[in-house]
Amino acid sequence: MDGQNCTFGACGAVAGVKNPIALARSICDAQRMPLTLGRVPPCLLVGSGANSWAKENNITTVDPVTLISEKALKTNHYCKKKLAKYEAFINDKNVTLNIEESPLDTIGAVAIDNEGNIAAACSSGGVMLKHSGRVGQAAAYGSGCWADKAVGIVTSGCGEYLMLTNLARETARTLENSNMATTGVYNSITNNFIQSPMLSRSKDKLAGMLVLQNKNENEREFLWAHTTKSMCIGYMATNSKRPTSRMSYLPNGREPGHSVIVEGICFY
Amino acid sequence: MDGQNCTFGACGAVAGVKNPIALARSICDAQRMPLTLGRVPPCLLVGSGANSWAKENNITTVDPVTLISEKALKTNHYCKKKLAKYEAFINDKNVTLNIEESPLDTIGAVAIDNEGNIAAACSSGGVMLKHSGRVGQAAAYGSGCWADKAVGIVTSGCGEYLMLTNLARETARTLENSNMATTGVYNSITNNFIQSPMLSRSKDKLAGMLVLQNKNENEREFLWAHTTKSMCIGYMATNSKRPTSRMSYLPNGREPGHSVIVEGICFY
Repeated sequence: MDGQNCTFGACGAVAGVKNPIALARSICDAQRMPLTLGRVPPCLLVGSGANSWAKENNITTVDPVTLISEKALKTNHYCKKKLAKYEAFINDKNVTLNIEESPLDTIGAVAIDNEGNIAAACSSGGVMLKHSGRVGQAAAYGSGCWADKAVGIVTSGCGEYLMLTNLARETARTLENSNMATTGVYNSITNNFIQSPMLSRSKDKLAGMLVLQNKNENEREFLWAHTTKSMCIGYMATNSKRPTSRMSYLPNGREPGHSVIVEGICFY
Repeated sequence: MDGQNCTFGACGAVAGVKNPIALARSICDAQRMPLTLGRVPPCLLVGSGANSWAKENNITTVDPVTLISEKALKTNHYCKKKLAKYEAFINDKNVTLNIEESPLDTIGAVAIDNEGNIAAACSSGGVMLKHSGRVGQAAAYGSGCWADKAVGIVTSGCGEYLMLTNLARETARTLENSNMATTGVYNSITNNFIQSPMLSRSKDKLAGMLVLQNKNENEREFLWAHTTKSMCIGYMATNSKRPTSRMSYLPNGREPGHSVIVEGICFY
């Protein structure tokens, strides 16, 4: 999402595109140029149509098989076995298996340039053992990322929960009406996610978030927040020699999916 | 979308499913039953994966070719010719062609039962000459439809604009804070759509909407609103012999895409 032009582009369920984020950007950028005959450029392309767009716009496509890492294939086989085992013993209450042991791979980034233009993007391999054709929050407007002139946000976590709560956009809205960013992010995740009526039937509400707020050229903050046990974050400025990275942990005694930690740094 | 359970299901870019709305409902209904191993059922399925879900859940699939009507094929050929002609003469300002002459086929419905449960759904063939793989507002959460305990909403119009403004959900939110439904709908379409900062670069903001509001068992209203030149609407109650249908027109002198008309009836 491009905060300067308020344009959003996304792709989902697309195979054989080396860098899906480049495809999303191409779809986003195309919205600045209206089409002939009053046609409106698409925001979201999926499946083979998304692959065609990539080819038409010189975005690297490859044989989908080359994108499957050995590790991912092993994890997939392991999870499938687990599921088969679980389903075979579904009535045996002594068998407890937790698929959440398999970490997944959503990644998000927010950036701001010297002129204060903000962009946010995220990309995800989805969840393990998902149904073929599933589109998650990374491709859902207002859910996986948000960028406007004041703020850039990316989220990670349970895709369906992030979609049903529009968490990125709702957090931007909460921050618009808040003077204190840390409190704003805390309130948004608490009210719009953990306590959302949309998720009243859901168990553990797992989410993570990066927020870059741009009040003016002297007041800029970078925040991170999560309801998961831990989240890995990183940041760097143009004059940094290398990025700073760290693991953020939910304090001892707080229950993942039910409480949130917010931290951050200011920069200008 | 099921207003009682706050569940949402959708499919997009799917070929060979006779009634895509039945597929969307199946995806929606599946969310009431959690999956094994902590997995969360999907909200949005697309492409061939959506087709597989249909087959797995006994939803009628057919040869995609049988779903192409003679009329739609003719219109498609006509529009393609128009586009080719336009693009050949793109520098000739005397050639003016308007694709909007080809009416399209989004349909939406809102229903309420005796217990006050609300459901809303919409289905669309998309826009003429769209890029393959495009997903529009019908499959986007909060854009094509909305249902909760108080209101059911469906929208129609320019899919990308409805997605970028989350018009269905935003209208539900506006109505939650409004004592007068007609004014609430008017204000929502004006503020959240026609004057939305997300659409500041857009020309004609075309949308239509059906709204069913359920305050209590004695106060129920059915409203319709549109910024298009006209919109066809219909309604019926359990005890009606047949549905009532009518064409609603924007009053003379009002410019389509820039002003809105709201009308409605009460029922209980």
